[in-house]
Amino acid sequence: MEQLLPRSVWLVQLDLSNLEAFARGCGVLGAGGGGGYRTGLLNVQQAVSDHGPVRVVRLDDLPDGLVMPCGAVGAPTVAVEKLGHGGEATRVRDRVEQLTGQQVVAVMGAEIGGANGCLPVAWAAKLGVPVLDGDGMGRAFPELQQSSLNLAGISPAPNILTDAHGNTVVIDPCDALWLERLVRATAVVFGGSCSGAGYLMTVDQARTAVIPGTVSLALQIGLSLSDTDDPVGSLLDSVNGVRLVEGKVIDVERRTTGGFARGSVSIEGLGADTGRLLRIEIQNENLVAFEDGSLAASVPDLITLVDTHTADPISTELLRYGQRVTAVAFPCSPIWRTETGLALVGPRAFGYDLDYAPVEDLHARQV
Amino acid sequence: MEQLLPRSVWLVQLDLSNLEAFARGCGVLGAGGGGGYRTGLLNVQQAVSDHGPVRVVRLDDLPDGLVMPCGAVGAPTVAVEKLGHGGEATRVRDRVEQLTGQQVVAVMGAEIGGANGCLPVAWAAKLGVPVLDGDGMGRAFPELQQSSLNLAGISPAPNILTDAHGNTVVIDPCDALWLERLVRATAVVFGGSCSGAGYLMTVDQARTAVIPGTVSLALQIGLSLSDTDDPVGSLLDSVNGVRLVEGKVIDVERRTTGGFARGSVSIEGLGADTGRLLRIEIQNENLVAFEDGSLAASVPDLITLVDTHTADPISTELLRYGQRVTAVAFPCSPIWRTETGLALVGPRAFGYDLDYAPVEDLHARQV
Repeated sequence: MEQLLPRSVWLVQLDLSNLEAFARGCGVLGAGGGGGYRTGLLNVQQAVSDHGPVRVVRLDDLPDGLVMPCGAVGAPTVAVEKLGHGGEATRVRDRVEQLTGQQVVAVMGAEIGGANGCLPVAWAAKLGVPVLDGDGMGRAFPELQQSSLNLAGISPAPNILTDAHGNTVVIDPCDALWLERLVRATAVVFGGSCSGAGYLMTVDQARTAVIPGTVSLALQIGLSLSDTDDPVGSLLDSVNGVRLVEGKVIDVERRTTGGFARGSVSIEGLGADTGRLLRIEIQNENLVAFEDGSLAASVPDLITLVDTHTADPISTELLRYGQRVTAVAFPCSPIWRTETGLALVGPRAFGYDLDYAPVEDLHARQV
Repeated sequence: MEQLLPRSVWLVQLDLSNLEAFARGCGVLGAGGGGGYRTGLLNVQQAVSDHGPVRVVRLDDLPDGLVMPCGAVGAPTVAVEKLGHGGEATRVRDRVEQLTGQQVVAVMGAEIGGANGCLPVAWAAKLGVPVLDGDGMGRAFPELQQSSLNLAGISPAPNILTDAHGNTVVIDPCDALWLERLVRATAVVFGGSCSGAGYLMTVDQARTAVIPGTVSLALQIGLSLSDTDDPVGSLLDSVNGVRLVEGKVIDVERRTTGGFARGSVSIEGLGADTGRLLRIEIQNENLVAFEDGSLAASVPDLITLVDTHTADPISTELLRYGQRVTAVAFPCSPIWRTETGLALVGPRAFGYDLDYAPVEDLHARQV
């Protein structure tokens, strides 16, 4: 299968001039999750102000050593208001090097989506290492087994978690499902959100495990939203997306439970879409969208809500009644459309008894 | 304060000839908790059959190295029916030695009570090391900060947990309360019970941290219950105890929640105690006993229910309607009666708004 997402930008570095566009692109790739990008942006702007720009590298640019995937884990409804300590990056990196006896030569995002796309750039600035142009999801997913690194057979052990108090937990799970269970319970004890690193791999192992180019892609998407009279149109062009509906948020149901934000959002069409109603179900991310009982889009394809006027992405914890939003959907990384990929992140992996259909097939006339 | 518990037996080894008496003594010292002693007995009998007797040592008998406190953690209502894998001892010891770079020269019980008094003997047999004559509680308590090792300033980091599936979790908490929170949540993910080691210390550190002689004491108590016409009387003599009531269990309320077994038991007096009613509140262990609204005994003193005819101790998860039981209470280790001791394990530490009174003062005429 061909790469569905265009890749025309190759980034050299992230600095104060391009971080905002990058972060907004991460917000689009979050599919509603990964944490609100504005929180992540503030975090990474501070780190880059303090420590300087971050070099963005490809695997061929790296010497031998470890690539350290990292991110926050927990409910974005918590993460949006629970700050870190600032020392997490160093504490986790030091523990990783102590446990493995290897040097961390680059960090990367466990997921490129939302604040979790920004976090590795902040950690890279603090640690003085580059960030890899790639991630483990090509978007954000709610659970830790839902990673290309798991799909590629990278060991989920050890996983290192830490919190703002200085607690550290090292988890050696017997498989990725146990990783998810143990990490989630720890994140809940840590107040609902924490940060850490896992699926550690050598540069060589990373070649067949990482979804490449997603840092560049996030910047490209973010740039497409500025200097245009039609931000939503530009966004759709940049991600090969479809417009599901344009309208108004008329209902948000949300609860923070078991380390996740779960719920749903209903969008009533306005203008040309008057009379239509889209309902999206949420587990941190936007998972599935239904209209009149029919599937409009589903995981692993990305469903993102953006401001109708600015195309600014709106993460699920920031949804509220009355927002004028456009729901867009676009193709996921091709690895998720394989049989093994769909087993990890298809609708059935989230408890929906329905077959996956690519978003471009569901909306063939529009694409 | 003088040692309230007599110490006349010094053990040399635990073998198939004395394990049953030892385990029954652990049951008495469990104050209803630590896991049913019969489960622990089966476990340690198997280990000693397979690997031979276990040497019981004092600190002066040990070379330089680590003492490894160990035990099961979780709800005894789960532990009574959830078997281990058998490889836990080796897996935990190996991880301890890897993390610390030191050799484990002896194991000891995190708590001497119930099945958790037997577990370290089984681990010692498997690991080919001696068991220390002492523990960290002098009884069983429900929470991990409630340890003489914590009181003595032994670091709660690292704590190593493992389960029957082969998962391992290493917790480096910033203090003992975080240890309890993180371990409890992990035990819940592991199905409600697991085993591990923590409060690792050198032989030298152990001198001011361990409650000494409690393995010998458990054997002595167990031996007092056999070859006698009055088992309950012998038991009371061996622990300087008082009889709270002799009667029948008329109500048991029990729920397994948050990694604990919580509830209460009511005992209606029979014979000379007809007309009396004792109510005991439970968090894994028997915490407080009330009669007619007055305190009859409370933590940190031990409240244990025993079979009226055999004095066989009955742990809280095995209580049921109709059992003929005698409730006994006896003094805790003197370290718990200090100001700092009571802050950790007194009634207020369990949420009871009442002052601690030594059980021998509450029942001055009877003692």
